[in-house]
Amino acid sequence: MFTTQGDIGLIGLAVMGQNLVLNLERNGYTVSVYNRTTSKMTDFVAENPGKKLLPTETLPQLVASLARPRRIIMMVQAGRPVDMLMSDLVPLLEAGDILMDGGNSLFHDTERRSKEMADTGIVYMGVGVSGGEEGALWGPSIMPGGPQAGWESVAPLLRAIAAKAPEDGKPCVAYLGPGGAGHYVKMVHNGIEYGDMQLIAEAYDILRGVLGLTAAELAEVFTEWNSGELDSYLIEITSKIFRRIDEETGDALVNRVLDKAAQKGTGKWTSQNAMDVGAPIPTINSAVTGRIISSLKSERVAASAILPGPQNAPYTGDRQALIDAVRDALYASKISAYAQGMSLLRIASQEYNYNLNLGEIASIWRDGCIIRARFLNRITEAFEREPALVNLLIDDQFRDAVTQRLPAWRKVVITAIERGIPAPAFSASLAYYDSYRTANLPANLLQAQRDFFGAHTYERTDKEGVFHSSWE
Amino acid sequence: MFTTQGDIGLIGLAVMGQNLVLNLERNGYTVSVYNRTTSKMTDFVAENPGKKLLPTETLPQLVASLARPRRIIMMVQAGRPVDMLMSDLVPLLEAGDILMDGGNSLFHDTERRSKEMADTGIVYMGVGVSGGEEGALWGPSIMPGGPQAGWESVAPLLRAIAAKAPEDGKPCVAYLGPGGAGHYVKMVHNGIEYGDMQLIAEAYDILRGVLGLTAAELAEVFTEWNSGELDSYLIEITSKIFRRIDEETGDALVNRVLDKAAQKGTGKWTSQNAMDVGAPIPTINSAVTGRIISSLKSERVAASAILPGPQNAPYTGDRQALIDAVRDALYASKISAYAQGMSLLRIASQEYNYNLNLGEIASIWRDGCIIRARFLNRITEAFEREPALVNLLIDDQFRDAVTQRLPAWRKVVITAIERGIPAPAFSASLAYYDSYRTANLPANLLQAQRDFFGAHTYERTDKEGVFHSSWE
Repeated sequence: MFTTQGDIGLIGLAVMGQNLVLNLERNGYTVSVYNRTTSKMTDFVAENPGKKLLPTETLPQLVASLARPRRIIMMVQAGRPVDMLMSDLVPLLEAGDILMDGGNSLFHDTERRSKEMADTGIVYMGVGVSGGEEGALWGPSIMPGGPQAGWESVAPLLRAIAAKAPEDGKPCVAYLGPGGAGHYVKMVHNGIEYGDMQLIAEAYDILRGVLGLTAAELAEVFTEWNSGELDSYLIEITSKIFRRIDEETGDALVNRVLDKAAQKGTGKWTSQNAMDVGAPIPTINSAVTGRIISSLKSERVAASAILPGPQNAPYTGDRQALIDAVRDALYASKISAYAQGMSLLRIASQEYNYNLNLGEIASIWRDGCIIRARFLNRITEAFEREPALVNLLIDDQFRDAVTQRLPAWRKVVITAIERGIPAPAFSASLAYYDSYRTANLPANLLQAQRDFFGAHTYERTDKEGVFHSSWE
Repeated sequence: MFTTQGDIGLIGLAVMGQNLVLNLERNGYTVSVYNRTTSKMTDFVAENPGKKLLPTETLPQLVASLARPRRIIMMVQAGRPVDMLMSDLVPLLEAGDILMDGGNSLFHDTERRSKEMADTGIVYMGVGVSGGEEGALWGPSIMPGGPQAGWESVAPLLRAIAAKAPEDGKPCVAYLGPGGAGHYVKMVHNGIEYGDMQLIAEAYDILRGVLGLTAAELAEVFTEWNSGELDSYLIEITSKIFRRIDEETGDALVNRVLDKAAQKGTGKWTSQNAMDVGAPIPTINSAVTGRIISSLKSERVAASAILPGPQNAPYTGDRQALIDAVRDALYASKISAYAQGMSLLRIASQEYNYNLNLGEIASIWRDGCIIRARFLNRITEAFEREPALVNLLIDDQFRDAVTQRLPAWRKVVITAIERGIPAPAFSASLAYYDSYRTANLPANLLQAQRDFFGAHTYERTDKEGVFHSSWE
C-alpha cells in the first residue's frame, strides 16, 4: 500500500516521459511512474532521490497508487504499443478516470480509440506534446483533445507544466476539440516543422552554393537573422549548429553529418491527410519529398557523376544583397507555408467537426514547441483582426510583408534554378502564392481532357450546370 | 436454362462495362451480362441486337449461364460496392472459377480481398483497365495481377481485347505479379497521367500568359508538338480540344470550361503511397496539389483582387524560340516525371514483392491507355539496355535528351517565375533533376537539427556509426 497517493501516473519512461515526470514533480505533483521494463523505472527513481515519485512495478500497482479520479499519461510508441497497453490498462480503470495519450499517435487511431472508450465512462484524451526533450522538461507546448469534461479536470495540471509564452506569460496549452483534435493539431504542427526545416536547409544550400559561405560565416548570418523577423527556435539552433566544432577533426561538425534525413512519419501523415481533406500544402509536401530524396544517398552520388548541371561562374553580384534576399525569400516562403498549414487546419476542422480556433492554436505554439517563434504572435493577431480569415496571405499585414519581399523571393528562386541548386520548397512556396492569387488557372484544360477521354463532365464559366461534350 | 453458355460474365454495365462487353463480343466471345438495376441490362441488350449477349437478371442466373471454369469481370465502383457484390457472388462460385475486378480498386483492397479469397480455391485477380470509354471499346491497356494460374487461363481472352501496340502489334497486356500488383501498376499509371496532364496545362498557361496565344494558335502548336518527341494521346487530344468551338458562343469551348479540376482519387493514392514506400514523386504530388488549388476557385478569385503579382511588360523575345523552349521544357519535365514514376514502381516492387518488370510495363502502356505515347518505347528500350536501371535519368539516351534541353528547361521555369505564372509541376520536375544529381544535399543540417532538439542521432560522412552530440 502507498502512504501517499499519486496525483498523476505516467507510463513509459523514455526520455520524453522522464522529462515530463520531472516537470510535473517540479510543479508540485506527486507522480506515480511505471515502465514495462521495470529496471528503467527503478533506475530513473534512483537517479532522482528526494523527488515526489511513486515507483510502481505493475499496472495494478500503478492504478492502486493514484488518487481518484485517476489521471494517467501514456508516453509510449505510437501504433500497436498504445493499443496493447490500453488492453491491459483499461480494465483496471473505472468511470471518471482520465486516460491521456501523450505520444505521437496518428489522429485516426485516437479517433478510433475515443469511440472504443466512449461507453466505458473513462475519459480518453489525445494530447499532443511538442518541444523535444528540453520542452518536456521545462515546458512543452501541449495540444489536448477529447471530451471537454476531461479538459476541465486536467487543465490546471497541464497549464502548470506547459511553456509560458514570453510575451504575456500565458501557458502554451488550450483545449482544442473533441476526439483526435489534439493529435491532429500536433500532426500539422510537425508538418509545418518539416516545412520550416526544409526551407532553412535550402537557404543554407543557396548561401553555401552561390556565395561559398563557411559554417562560421553561416553562423553569423543565422545569428543576425534570429534578431529580426525570422526570430525563432529553429533559426537559433541553426546558428548554434553552424558554430559547433567537431573536436576530432577541427571541422564544423555539421560538415561531417551525413545528408540523409530520416523521418518518423508525422510530416508524411500531414501530407497524406491534406490530400484526403483537399487542402493544398505544397511546401510541406516538398519537405517530405526532400527528405526522401536525401535518403537516396548512394543513388545521388552515382548520378552526380553522370548528370550535368550548369557551369557556374563565380557570383559577381553584391554578396550582402544576396544574403538579404535569401532572408526575405525565407520569410516570404515561411508565410506561404504557414498560410498553407493554417488553411489545412481550417479545412480539416470542417471535415472532422473539430471547431478549431486557429488564432488560439497559433498562440499555444508561441513557446515550448519546435516551431516556436515571434512569428506566431503575428498569426494570432491576424485571426484577432479577422476570426474568419480564410487564408493568412490575404491578411493586410501578411500581404504587405510578402509584397515587399516578392522581388527578392523571385530573384532567389531564379538564382537557385540558374545555378542548378535544388530549392523545391522555396519554389513550391512561391508557386502556391502565385496559384492562390490567380483567378484563372489552366485547370479548364484538365477538365476538358477529362471530359474528352472519360466523359467526366465539366462546369462552365458562363452558366450553371454540368456539361459533357463530344470534343472531336 | 441457357441454350448457349457464356464464355465470360460481366457485372456492371456503366459505360466502361458496356464497352468492354462489346469489345469481348466483337472478338468472338459470348458474354453473359448482369447489372444490379436490371433495366440497364435489358436496355443495353436491346440496343445491341444480334450480338452474342446472354442477359441475366440475377447473380445465380449469371453464374448458371457460364461455362466452367467460370470467368467473371466485375466493373463496379471501387470500395464498398465491390465488397458488397463479392459477398453475394462468391458463395455462388466454386473452386477454379476466376473472378476479376476490372475497376479502379485501391491495391490495398485488392491485397485484402486476395487474402480473403486465398482459401476458397476461387482465383481472384485485380485487373487494371485503362483507356477510358474508347479504350474499353476498341482495346484498352490491361494490367492484370493475381495468381499466375489465373493469368494462364484468361490470357487469350485479355490479349484478344487489349490494344495492340502500333510498333509491333503486341497486345498491351502482361501478367504483372501477385495480389494487388495489377491495381498497383494501374494506380501508378494514373499518377503519371496526373503529372502529364498538369505539365501540359502549365505549358498552355505559359504560352497564353507570356505570348497571349489564342486557342486556335495553341491548337497549331500542339498539333506540331504531336508530330515530334511529344507524340502522345494527351498531346493529340489537347490539340483537338483547342480546336473545338462552342456552338452557342462561337468561342473556343475550352475558354468556357471552369478551371476547377476534379479528381477521383487514383493520383492522390499514388502520392500517398509513394510517401509510404519512400519514393520521391514530386511532379505527381504537385499535380495532385495543383488540382486541389484549382478547386478553391472562389478563394482564388477573391485573392486575385488582393494579392499583387509582377508588372509584366509585353514579351519582346523571339516568340517561336519561347514556344520551342516550352516544348523542350515539357519534354524534359516529362522525362523527369516518368523517371519518378518508374522509380516508384521499382521501390514498391521491392516493398510488396511484386517482382515487376519495368520495361514490360512501359511496353503495355504504349497503346490503349491514357498515357499512351511513342515515348513509352524509349522507356522499354532503356530497360532492355539495362534491365536493372535504377533511374531513367541515368540512361544514356534519356540523359542526353535532358542535357540538350536543360537550358530551355531552366529558362522556361525562370520566365514563369518572373511573370508570376505558377508552374509547380515544371519547377518540381526540374528540382527533382537537380536534387537527384546532387551528391551533397543540405539534409546534413536537417539531421543536425533533429539531433539538436530531439536526440534523433545522425550518421557521419567520415566514419561508420550512429552519433549523438550535445550541440550547444
